[in-house]
Parts: sequence; structure tokens; C-alpha cells
Amino acid sequence: MNKNIKVNAAIIIIGNEILSGRTQDTNTSTLATWLNSVGVKVGEVRIIPDNEKTIIDTLNLYRKTYDYVFTTGGIGPTHDDITAETVSKTFGLKYEIHKEAFKILEAYYQPGEFNEGRQKMVWMPKNAELILNPTSGAPGFSVENVFCLPGVPSILKSMLGGLKNKIVGGAPILSKTISLRTVESEIANSLTKVQDQNKDVEIGSYPFFQAGKLGVSIVIRSEDQSKINNCNSQILQFVDQKKIEVVDR
Amino acid sequence: MNKNIKVNAAIIIIGNEILSGRTQDTNTSTLATWLNSVGVKVGEVRIIPDNEKTIIDTLNLYRKTYDYVFTTGGIGPTHDDITAETVSKTFGLKYEIHKEAFKILEAYYQPGEFNEGRQKMVWMPKNAELILNPTSGAPGFSVENVFCLPGVPSILKSMLGGLKNKIVGGAPILSKTISLRTVESEIANSLTKVQDQNKDVEIGSYPFFQAGKLGVSIVIRSEDQSKINNCNSQILQFVDQKKIEVVDR
Repeated sequence: MNKNIKVNAAIIIIGNEILSGRTQDTNTSTLATWLNSVGVKVGEVRIIPDNEKTIIDTLNLYRKTYDYVFTTGGIGPTHDDITAETVSKTFGLKYEIHKEAFKILEAYYQPGEFNEGRQKMVWMPKNAELILNPTSGAPGFSVENVFCLPGVPSILKSMLGGLKNKIVGGAPILSKTISLRTVESEIANSLTKVQDQNKDVEIGSYPFFQAGKLGVSIVIRSEDQSKINNCNSQILQFVDQKKIEVVDR
Repeated sequence: MNKNIKVNAAIIIIGNEILSGRTQDTNTSTLATWLNSVGVKVGEVRIIPDNEKTIIDTLNLYRKTYDYVFTTGGIGPTHDDITAETVSKTFGLKYEIHKEAFKILEAYYQPGEFNEGRQKMVWMPKNAELILNPTSGAPGFSVENVFCLPGVPSILKSMLGGLKNKIVGGAPILSKTISLRTVESEIANSLTKVQDQNKDVEIGSYPFFQAGKLGVSIVIRSEDQSKINNCNSQILQFVDQKKIEVVDR
């Protein structure tokens, strides 16, 4: 971790099933939460189809703009899994059998089970670094600052631990949430004043419904705990003046 | 509906809370499912921060590339709600009080409740068309082919009905799902052959876990039911040959 730098990332969710609405993406939230915890801020997410040109264009834009790029989806054994071959083309690398991945899957499966379909999953960009998969064997991989993970949420989650030593984050982004029994319009002006006085702190306001009652969560985010504390005090001051109830969530 | 044209859309999810991982986006899935049902295919989704320049750039790209653009988030009463003002700037329109929206909210709230905070929600691009909100009063709006909806999922959902006469879709995208008790690698080669013989049909393969057992759902998508039926037969043929069980999901 380098406490003095800001480190950012972008996420590319590859998959027609997300764009059709059939599948609810949860990988964005999983990845973003994990990246925050290691000091990496997610700047943008794109959900794009299983289309070679779109993937290449997005990768080329993001890998030059962001410190890290994560892709999810498209690394399985079927015809619609084109991420590995497309990353190879993006970097101008040969798409070939990765010997280490081959050994891992050969050992993972029972004799005779490592068939042609499964062997597709060891085709990767030449010299890709593997990201180990403790759930279902088939590894993800990285090339330079691009990290390719599977689309199945439980498998993706299980692979994040193995990324820890590969991602060098900056100062972790800290946050403080204040939940109030009020509606946004009651606090909007006061909150604007706090934001104006603390321009380098990110203050968000999010309405919620809980047990049939309306509320608002205010989220303060910064790398600097003292700045968060300062905003927190200013918010609690107007909350107190307005006699608004603070609630647990 | 025009059965002979293809109509597409892009979605812009505006919100730091999604990028931080704090909030799980569900609006993409809701909107995409609904758009499909009215014959509009979602081509791309971007999740971007509450940042004026990013919103303007994305709007300008999408509104020229797609038939329809939907934004979610940023139309509430607080300082981080910048969508309406940003859309005004994008189109070079005056950002002003929308008289019809003002009347709606004036009638919606009890006397004295329509305070300054709430009045922010009636500031919109000049001559914007309203999208009525049966849940919480404050309307969304559209300018040309850009439709701005709120971020709160239950409110967004309740507003889709009011969009029906504003969105002119093409032929609805039909789909057929075949769920199998197998793993992807067992069917990968056979499925590739079916895809190669039906290039204009979208065939996706998605592993699932159900009641502790592995399975694969094959999703066939096209505007043409006879093409779906044809692929379905070809798939069931190899499924039968391989003695794979078809399951209900």
C-alpha cells in the first residue's frame, strides 16, 4: 500500500445475459467493495455484450486510463466465452495453451474428465499470470494491468483472496454512514452547506425504506479520517438543531 | 411497434454509491427486462460517478449512437442530485422551474410541506416532457431521446408503465431457455456447431447451481420464433443423443 497515492480501477462486465436483464449483475458490487478495502477506487463500470470489437475497444481505453482493469465473464468453455482470445488480440499476444493452467486442470479433474471442452479453459494470452480458483479449478489470468475473472459470482468471490498480493492500492477509502429518520428535502440545504465547506470529501445522500418508515442515509467518504470526523460533527450539529432522530441501520 | 426495425437503447447508471459497492444496482436488470418486453434491445450500460463532465460526455455519445438513452439516479432534492441540470447543459437548454411539475408536487404535498428542498425537484430542462411518478410524486422527464428516471428501484419500477406510449420498439426479442443437468464442457462442442449453423441467433450458455446440483441453462434469443424453434430442436437432438436430463427451472 502506498498511502500517498490515489489508485483507481475500472470494471468491464462482459455478458449478453446482463444486458438482456435475464441475469442480475452482482459482481460490480462485490469487486467494488473489495477494491475499496484494498485502497482502490472504482471510477467507472461498463456492461458490454460478448462482442470482440467492443471488448477490445473498451480494454484499450481503460488500460491506458486506469491503474487496474477488471473483466468478469466469458472465460468458460463454451462458444460465447471469448474473453481470453480477445485479450490476446488486444495485447497482440499469441493465444495458446497455458502450461501451468493445463497442469492445474489436469490434476483437478478425474482421469478422462479433462476433455476438449474443458481444455478450452487453459487457452490464454501467452505468458499470462494465473489467478487461482479455489472453487472450480479453472484459473483466471492477468496481462499487465488487466485482470480477467469469471462471471459466476460465487467463483469470482473465491478468487479475490488470491489477488491481494497483485493489487497495490493507495490509502483505503474510509466511510462513515449516518442514518436519519427524515426525508431528503428536510436536510438538503443544510447538507449542501456542509458539502460546500468540505469540497474534497464525498458526501452522498440516499433515501431508504425500513420497517415501513422513510429514512435517509448520509455517507461521508474520504481517505482522511479527520476530514470524515469533521463532516460528521457538522452534520450531527444540524441534525440536532432540527431535532431529527438518528437511527441504527 | 414496428416489426421490421431493430430498436436499441443504452442505460447510464449515475451514482457514486454504486461505484463504491455500497449499493447493489438492480435498475439495469429492471430496465433491460422491461425494454426487451417492448422490443428494445439494450446495447450497453455505463455506471458513472456524480460528475458533470462524465455525464455530459456519456449522454452526448449515447444519444447519437442509440435510439433511446435512459439515466437512473441524481434527480432528488440533495446537492449530489445533478442529473437535471446536467441534462440541461448537455442539450443547451435553460434549467428552470417546470410549471407542470410544480403543480403536480404542489398538489401532492400537504400545505406548507412543499419546501425549498422539494422545489429543487421541479427544476428541469426547459420544455422537458414529464414522466409521471405514481409512488412519490416527483416526476422524471425526457428531452428528445433521453429519459431520466430516479435511482430508487421501487420508484423507478412504478414509472415504467407511464413510458409505454413514449417508447416505440421493434419486434420483441423472444427467448427460449433449456436447462440441463450437465456441465458446460460436456456440451460446448455441440453447442458451438448449433451456433455456427444459426449465426443470426444469439445462443448463451450459463452454468447454475440448484439444490446442490450443477446445471447449465442455454438461452436462445431472436426476434424470429421459427429460428428459435429450429435451434431448440437442434439442441434437444444432441441433448437426447448424449442422454442429458432436461430440468425445469
